[in-house]
Amino acid sequence: MAENKYVIGLDYGTDSARALIVNAMTGESIATSVKYYPRWKKGLYCNPKTNQWRQHPKDYLEVLVASVTEALGQCSPEVAKNVVGIAFDTTGSTPAFTDETGTPLAMLPEFAENPNAMFVLWKDHTAIKEAAEINEKCKANDVDYSQYEGGIYSAEWFWAKAMHVLREDPEVLAKAYSIVEYCEWLPAVLTGVTSAKDIVRSRCAEGHKAMWHESWGGLPPEEFLVSLDPKLAGFRERLFEKTETAEKPVGKLCKEWAEKLGLSEDVIVAGGAFDCHMGAVGAGVAPNTLVRVIGTSTCDVMVSSYEEVGDKLIKGICGQVDGSVIPGMIGLEAGQSSFGDVFAMFRRVLEFPLRQVLPKSSLAQKLSEHEMEALIEEAADKIIVELTEEAEKIPISESSMVATDWINGRRTPDANQLLEGTIAGFTLGTQAPQIYRALVEATAYGTKAIVDRFISEGCRIDQVIGIGGIALKSPFVMQTMSDVLNLPIKVCNTDQACALGAAMFAATAAGVYEKVEDAIEAMNSGFSKTYYPSEENHKAYMPIYEKYLKLGAFAEKEIFTAE
Amino acid sequence: MAENKYVIGLDYGTDSARALIVNAMTGESIATSVKYYPRWKKGLYCNPKTNQWRQHPKDYLEVLVASVTEALGQCSPEVAKNVVGIAFDTTGSTPAFTDETGTPLAMLPEFAENPNAMFVLWKDHTAIKEAAEINEKCKANDVDYSQYEGGIYSAEWFWAKAMHVLREDPEVLAKAYSIVEYCEWLPAVLTGVTSAKDIVRSRCAEGHKAMWHESWGGLPPEEFLVSLDPKLAGFRERLFEKTETAEKPVGKLCKEWAEKLGLSEDVIVAGGAFDCHMGAVGAGVAPNTLVRVIGTSTCDVMVSSYEEVGDKLIKGICGQVDGSVIPGMIGLEAGQSSFGDVFAMFRRVLEFPLRQVLPKSSLAQKLSEHEMEALIEEAADKIIVELTEEAEKIPISESSMVATDWINGRRTPDANQLLEGTIAGFTLGTQAPQIYRALVEATAYGTKAIVDRFISEGCRIDQVIGIGGIALKSPFVMQTMSDVLNLPIKVCNTDQACALGAAMFAATAAGVYEKVEDAIEAMNSGFSKTYYPSEENHKAYMPIYEKYLKLGAFAEKEIFTAE
Repeated sequence: MAENKYVIGLDYGTDSARALIVNAMTGESIATSVKYYPRWKKGLYCNPKTNQWRQHPKDYLEVLVASVTEALGQCSPEVAKNVVGIAFDTTGSTPAFTDETGTPLAMLPEFAENPNAMFVLWKDHTAIKEAAEINEKCKANDVDYSQYEGGIYSAEWFWAKAMHVLREDPEVLAKAYSIVEYCEWLPAVLTGVTSAKDIVRSRCAEGHKAMWHESWGGLPPEEFLVSLDPKLAGFRERLFEKTETAEKPVGKLCKEWAEKLGLSEDVIVAGGAFDCHMGAVGAGVAPNTLVRVIGTSTCDVMVSSYEEVGDKLIKGICGQVDGSVIPGMIGLEAGQSSFGDVFAMFRRVLEFPLRQVLPKSSLAQKLSEHEMEALIEEAADKIIVELTEEAEKIPISESSMVATDWINGRRTPDANQLLEGTIAGFTLGTQAPQIYRALVEATAYGTKAIVDRFISEGCRIDQVIGIGGIALKSPFVMQTMSDVLNLPIKVCNTDQACALGAAMFAATAAGVYEKVEDAIEAMNSGFSKTYYPSEENHKAYMPIYEKYLKLGAFAEKEIFTAE
Repeated sequence: MAENKYVIGLDYGTDSARALIVNAMTGESIATSVKYYPRWKKGLYCNPKTNQWRQHPKDYLEVLVASVTEALGQCSPEVAKNVVGIAFDTTGSTPAFTDETGTPLAMLPEFAENPNAMFVLWKDHTAIKEAAEINEKCKANDVDYSQYEGGIYSAEWFWAKAMHVLREDPEVLAKAYSIVEYCEWLPAVLTGVTSAKDIVRSRCAEGHKAMWHESWGGLPPEEFLVSLDPKLAGFRERLFEKTETAEKPVGKLCKEWAEKLGLSEDVIVAGGAFDCHMGAVGAGVAPNTLVRVIGTSTCDVMVSSYEEVGDKLIKGICGQVDGSVIPGMIGLEAGQSSFGDVFAMFRRVLEFPLRQVLPKSSLAQKLSEHEMEALIEEAADKIIVELTEEAEKIPISESSMVATDWINGRRTPDANQLLEGTIAGFTLGTQAPQIYRALVEATAYGTKAIVDRFISEGCRIDQVIGIGGIALKSPFVMQTMSDVLNLPIKVCNTDQACALGAAMFAATAAGVYEKVEDAIEAMNSGFSKTYYPSEENHKAYMPIYEKYLKLGAFAEKEIFTAE
């Protein structure tokens, strides 16, 4: 029993962070704890109207201590002693400016309340203009530095966000020394890094989002960056040349953090990577399998051999990076900018009568304020369940409503952040379940558009693996997706695939396994369910998919591309 | 005081009928009563999914007795004795098949429960296919018999509905002798008509909806009708040659109905016409003024001189008929197939959490079933008020959502019943009030498209007069309309303009006035409010109107014209 080794997978999502303690030999989960980011939960530093989404670095550190100590508290003291490795996966591209010590500026008292000094969350869309400029410059240049990132640079990514903040905030501009990705900063903190230049850089983050590529010697040349904006001058030199894959150790736990977390200073801290990339590993990624992390948005990950992809560019996806998922294979990334968010938006629309009308009704005399709030939350939480029940009864029909899934722009295929969602087919008889069904279908059509692109670019896809909340909890959404794709979809047996993937990297970094594939083999969770496509439904959906494509092409061309 | 003469205006709308007792000298309203159609209210004989909307003739007769006797019951007995005239306005085209006696088939025991034997309500869209066939035949013919009805025959009209029912129902086909419009049948009932051939035919109804025109000797020739469908053979001869304007007496009250209503047999019954046409008169229609009856849909009415219109065809409106509104002038009709229905649809969508979720919540333990129902109705009734309050705060912006108002097809300009509504511009932050605002704007853009068509066809419009529930109760909707049109909109001082218009026809038919214009002069209600356009808002709306037109053109071309 004393032989057991444990690892901690730390999964940092949009709203919360999870600590998962895993038996490094078997993959068995021993304990877990989820903590919500306290400032983020209050809506601080964000502005939904301008799509500004920022997160305070203190949120991350506070939930780190709280979740790890709580999870360890659930285990026998032996476990803490036998933890050998830790790894982080986080959202991304979620960069922040740092000072010379590698400390995010918002950690300094004078920047503590400045959203521009915080992490610019993946879904922040304030840098749309800057992304357009980057794309223009990339296309005009001899070398298109965006080519391995799908050829369309997104407002959600590293350089666009950096440019935007530097332009908007002279104080940040004056103080900023370097830039760090969320998934790089946490390992740096835990290993006691005190200089920005010592931060170990993530192959996954920088390769997919910062135009880092070996063929042009790392980041794009200074000259190019300065041509984007003179304010970027000097950053390249202060940033990095090399990036590392995540199974490589970053270092050992520093004294301060070993004490804070109740772990030994021998614990190996692995490199960081994006949640969906580690999630794909946790889900058991393999060639010709598309792994989808399905949450508020989706992150779609494939690995492909050099034989299949080689030097060929896959058009219109989010990126192709050597070793971003599994060392030695090319990691391919795609995704839908909104997925669960599509349903959440509609749920919020339907919450209007609950939140705005009920409190002004005669019911307010019968219930206390607290009871009213509880009732509203209870009812709001049931909306999607009830919608699903009714929507499932509606037959698939060409005369149904058709919607596009681009309520947060489109990530792939062919990123376009300016796009908005459209719903067509309202009649006198339209009711909420029909709209919901159209939205569910829209997310499946958005999936098909991605799969079709991989296929047309020569990447075979035989099956889909689904992970994330929606994969586990929404059979209607998943069956619709399977039918539309005409592919089987396996759902992971764990609701913590990202954290499990991080645990696999922690185990590999700590030397329990020689390579990531071995960790997958030993630690995977298996599958809880497989959705098989109905040929009949697939045929019925295809004419509606054609309408989806037409509606989308029109919206893109005519209505919603002007700022 | 004994000099006072009274008239009864009877306004038969989609859901209910109103009896309005009016002082024929002053226009002052003495008493009123509204009764809902009992079978219709239960949803009988209708199918929202197929857009089948049928009304039982017994509904009409029952509310006739109930409303007139209730209204008279509110007055001194002197009033009943001094009623000199009665007139009806009704929805239309709302035809029913009759037997040889002019009795709608559903009044016969064997057809009592057959929706095809009932009145086919104006908004019934079951005859879309037949309308397309009529249009095809009209265009292929030497004479286009639809030319005075805008050149596009609608599924909502007389012949399309007649063809559809005859094709669908062999029992009706076997028994049907003639066809009667709702507004013709009620005067016929009250005057004791016992033969279909004796029914006085409405210039308004038949001229606007049945392709009746003097230039081709009344209804289209038998040969043409039979070419539409051999099942129509023989109807033309059994129908009519002549039509009459509504200020002409149809006859006097028959004994049976004088007793039922508590009136004398000397009461003159005027001709019937459509609600919006009589409403336009009640609102004080005059040249260069567009009168809009704004309810679930709109009916837009203009009168124009021969000098302005002459023999020229106004393209894409619903019709131009000599004397359909005021004898001696050309009545022009247009309209939006859905207006208040657009908001009602959205309200119904938002009712989902109230109707489907609340009853399954813990609140069900606290409230009785009856209390729950009452709460749901109370909250549902407040949804639009709350939406309006929030929507008014949203600034007019090109980046707003854009919607089309065609959830029940488009009546004008250029009728197309196949169209459906579209809403574009959904984002992560979309909430119910933004959608509502887009829908309000959509109804205003739909209005502008109609006004623009009148203007481009040479009919000047200087002002709009609004009547109907929405004109009186929705300042936000009306101000938006005024801003989008850049025209002042006057709102009638009465919420019963249609019934008041009917009263004016009753007074003219009874000889109190020589002509309808005199009745308007003496009996009009004046205006309660004028909305003046904001130049600034108008300018802000125009780019969104361009988007509306583009979105509409796309939807019409690509998505929703294939059945």
